[in-house]
Amino acid sequence: MARVQPLSGFPEWTPQERLVEAHVLATLREVFALHGFGEIETRAVEPVERLAGDSEASKEIYAIGRLNADEQAGREAKLGLHFDLTVPFARYVEENQGRLQFPFRRFQIQKVWRGERPQEGRFREFYQADIDVVGRDRLPEHLEAEVAIVMARALRELPLPPARMHLNNRALVEGFYRGVGILDVAGALRSVDKLDKIGADGVREELHGKGVSPEAVGAILELAAIQTPDGSFVDLVEALWDHAPIVDDADEAREHFDRGARSLAALVDAVNAAVPDTALADLRIARGLDYYTGAVYETVLEGHEDLGSICSGGRYDSLVAGGGFPGVGMSIGVSRLVSRMLGANLATATRSVPSAVLVAVTDEEHRAASSALADRLRTRGIPTEVSPNAAKFGKQIQYADRRGIPFVWFPPAPGDGGDGEVKDIRSGDQVPADADAWTPPTEDLKPRIVRG
Amino acid sequence: MARVQPLSGFPEWTPQERLVEAHVLATLREVFALHGFGEIETRAVEPVERLAGDSEASKEIYAIGRLNADEQAGREAKLGLHFDLTVPFARYVEENQGRLQFPFRRFQIQKVWRGERPQEGRFREFYQADIDVVGRDRLPEHLEAEVAIVMARALRELPLPPARMHLNNRALVEGFYRGVGILDVAGALRSVDKLDKIGADGVREELHGKGVSPEAVGAILELAAIQTPDGSFVDLVEALWDHAPIVDDADEAREHFDRGARSLAALVDAVNAAVPDTALADLRIARGLDYYTGAVYETVLEGHEDLGSICSGGRYDSLVAGGGFPGVGMSIGVSRLVSRMLGANLATATRSVPSAVLVAVTDEEHRAASSALADRLRTRGIPTEVSPNAAKFGKQIQYADRRGIPFVWFPPAPGDGGDGEVKDIRSGDQVPADADAWTPPTEDLKPRIVRG
Repeated sequence: MARVQPLSGFPEWTPQERLVEAHVLATLREVFALHGFGEIETRAVEPVERLAGDSEASKEIYAIGRLNADEQAGREAKLGLHFDLTVPFARYVEENQGRLQFPFRRFQIQKVWRGERPQEGRFREFYQADIDVVGRDRLPEHLEAEVAIVMARALRELPLPPARMHLNNRALVEGFYRGVGILDVAGALRSVDKLDKIGADGVREELHGKGVSPEAVGAILELAAIQTPDGSFVDLVEALWDHAPIVDDADEAREHFDRGARSLAALVDAVNAAVPDTALADLRIARGLDYYTGAVYETVLEGHEDLGSICSGGRYDSLVAGGGFPGVGMSIGVSRLVSRMLGANLATATRSVPSAVLVAVTDEEHRAASSALADRLRTRGIPTEVSPNAAKFGKQIQYADRRGIPFVWFPPAPGDGGDGEVKDIRSGDQVPADADAWTPPTEDLKPRIVRG
Repeated sequence: MARVQPLSGFPEWTPQERLVEAHVLATLREVFALHGFGEIETRAVEPVERLAGDSEASKEIYAIGRLNADEQAGREAKLGLHFDLTVPFARYVEENQGRLQFPFRRFQIQKVWRGERPQEGRFREFYQADIDVVGRDRLPEHLEAEVAIVMARALRELPLPPARMHLNNRALVEGFYRGVGILDVAGALRSVDKLDKIGADGVREELHGKGVSPEAVGAILELAAIQTPDGSFVDLVEALWDHAPIVDDADEAREHFDRGARSLAALVDAVNAAVPDTALADLRIARGLDYYTGAVYETVLEGHEDLGSICSGGRYDSLVAGGGFPGVGMSIGVSRLVSRMLGANLATATRSVPSAVLVAVTDEEHRAASSALADRLRTRGIPTEVSPNAAKFGKQIQYADRRGIPFVWFPPAPGDGGDGEVKDIRSGDQVPADADAWTPPTEDLKPRIVRG
């Protein structure tokens, strides 16, 4: 068999690194639950026809098939691995609508798979963490602020630099685009979404190619340049409308535009009131996907802007293809974040194993005594292991030291009373102790995640 | 698009059911960590050539491939989804051996996939939870007891009826089989492994077909019938050896047999000493897989014998194909257990959502006051949500009731002081409360898992 080697795009962590990832996942779960979101998991596979609905994404789908497929298998639906958690969530809601309570607040943390070209250095398997609130027929607008607040709080609980949420509103943008006479609003949005990649000139060129007038392109780019940390953008966009090449019969577009502006201003204020210095209105945020209809979100990590948006989402009118189930949701790309935390040394675990104590073994005949001591510590929630061998105590201390286990417990010499002594192998302090009472300092009880 | 429908073999749970599964997973994690096992996760895919090493299992492999594969993709290694956690663990250890400390104590809880025929009613995607201890060159025998003890304790922490571990030892069995002249020991073990399925007559027929003498078959079946709750089997198997048709030159086989018998007796005693009434020596336990060399384990749940073994494993001389890395491990089939817990009503969550409190909203203009109240509760770790609408209080209470949220908090009338009142909607009790001090009873703080 060929020598083993890592597969590009499929990250794996050491046990010590995994502690950081597990901490991130547990923190997200905790914050989501604290805000009343319930968890679901969906199967890893969906019918390919459902996954391939969005043609942009279809090239990234991993299809699966039984290696030794027989005739029977040929008649089964073709399946693929999910590439996000939205497609399976939509199917889950449709399938279980009779058993769910709406509005349905759910979080979902699972791996997703994308068959990206490996040379692009992107992950092909990674954790996503999503929250959504979905109504049956309608969904109040204030929930657009709530999901942003929950995500902002979750990010603040993680060992990360400050995150800024860039907020926009589709009604505002679409109203404006229609106002300046653009018919293919979705197409224009996709062009503007590339501003970071291809720059203003590139976008201008693309939009000209799509038949948008130079004046309209200019207005669009002016709109995209507006960014304020509060509701003050409203005056700016209204002034821009007043000077823009607005078409006749733009009343409906203007109404749309005004509604979006009011909504965005309320959103930015609500998020900043709950989590100060988090949100800004950024009229450039487009999000490629067609189905957003209200708030859209992107999140940038200070000092790590190269990661792009680490937490994105938006408001949609309809979760499922057939219509119905309006909702709002956001998604964190967890593995990319964890990879950066580890790579940039933002976070590290204080040790590689859960054990706080290694109970030494005097000789193999007395192993049971060491095991019994260990069990008395475990009963009180102290992670403990027993030395795998009865080597010289120096060797057993080395075993603990290599794993970062802070304490070694020496059982009493056979025949002696008491429970022996416990040594802090960092300081060298060694004291007699009672296995039913001794407790390590709180900070040593479990591996902690500390800023690197 | 076709109407959505469940996929046979891919179980999914409601949010309330998922709470039971999450409880099981969290409990396993906690017990494993308490005993000093560190966690890893491996990627979902392995090269097919590695997965297909065991020809028995290869028919169950799901291969994956990019839907829109291009030339580039054709040159990549063919990948498949892992069907257990042992194959990826072996690859992980081989790949990371320079970064791991041995003996390496790891647990791993992930989904695995098997392309079983759907009509067999078996899961095609399910959680497994594995623990293993792996040495670099050698591994002390006492760890065979330790993994069984950890798993027995984990099972006791779950909402399940008592579990019995059936233990055997490969050296004992192989020594005996060789003693009665069997050359294809692995083949004979595979036949004996079918005792439950095809009965003694079926096994007898198979072994005759493999050229085993009637006398040897008789002795093998007598051995398989021995079952004792302690070390008393030793006398029985020694007596059996004395009457069995032992070949000439059986000294080495006898030595093997004796060593296995001593080891199994010590194992049963050690497990029962740590977790009373758990283990029995059961000489019938064969385990199909070739690579076990010492202890082998199966676990049966009282009253749910139809599930077969819920937790199995064994001791092996070499985790990787090239040799080296002796270890011992056990694996729980978590999804099948959870499915039974739910189906047989062994466990249920006390509510469907994490929220302990719903903060009512008097009218939309005062929503911010309700949100502020909710945040004060959340700060103290009380899962809380705010009513999505400002309907009549009766409707808002109904919202809480449908989700099992035990408390509704009514904010003060606008202009009034204080924090309003909190109502236990089960008893109807309503009292004025301070949002910085009030706490729900401990049993209501989070959804609990209770025996059904």
